[in-house]
Amino acid sequence: MRSIIERVERLEEERKELAGDVKDIFTEAKSAGFDVKVIRQLIKIRKMEPSEVEEQETLLDTYRRAIGM
Amino acid sequence: MRSIIERVERLEEERKELAGDVKDIFTEAKSAGFDVKVIRQLIKIRKMEPSEVEEQETLLDTYRRAIGM
Amino acid sequence: MRSIIERVERLEEERKELAGDVKDIFTEAKSAGFDVKVIRQLIKIRKMEPSEVEEQETLLDTYRRAIGM
Amino acid sequence: MRSIIERVERLEEERKELAGDVKDIFTEAKSAGFDVKVIRQLIKIRKMEPSEVEEQETLLDTYRRAIGM
Repeated sequence: MRSIIERVERLEEERKELAGDVKDIFTEAKSAGFDVKVIRQLIKIRKMEPSEVEEQETLLDTYRRAIGM
Repeated sequence: MRSIIERVERLEEERKELAGDVKDIFTEAKSAGFDVKVIRQLIKIRKMEPSEVEEQETLLDTYRRAIGM
Repeated sequence: MRSIIERVERLEEERKELAGDVKDIFTEAKSAGFDVKVIRQLIKIRKMEPSEVEEQETLLDTYRRAIGM
Repeated sequence: MRSIIERVERLEEERKELAGDVKDIFTEAKSAGFDVKVIRQLIKIRKMEPSEVEEQETLLDTYRRAIGM
């Protein structure tokens, strides 16, 4: 039981440090004039298949036009 | 104490029902051939100022080109 | 499409208002001297079967003793 | 820009692997007969000050009695 708990706590600690590292990179990016929200969006897009990205962008355009946006 | 708890529970119950209603609408939309993920994206965009949407789309394009996407 | 989006937006608006009502009740409870975190815990417990609550409390005690807490 | 994105992606990848490791430990714990939900509760308690834990447990008891639970 103790071993289970301590291993989980150590891993969660490492995850927290990595989350801090990510936060630092975004703080640095913001200071350099980048838009962090847009960078996050770009990272999300990079995880998708190019064909899927294109399909969703086309659909979004279609739906926007359908409601006159 | 009892009054506080019961009021919160009732409100949380109503929120859950509304969440169910939203889910039903999306199920219905999917059956009608719509892409639910794209509709969610559209709803998100509608909450933003048009100028902010345009700015973010321009930035996303710029960043994509910067990394050759 | 417009109808789907507007219905979802209206439901999400209502959900947001209910979330605001819950927040108000907790603010009021805090002013009256109650511990909001503990009230939330109590609401969580009330959703569980009494037998399940008792079983989890017994297990928690056992695990705590096992690691000398 | 590319450097920012690649560093974030690498860190997020490491975080995901650690989350997978945590999940594996809990799967293993479950196979060994432990209640994962209770272990998570125990880990949460271990992060708190003992005096805070005791205070919250006393309050929870008081509130439960107040509503006849």
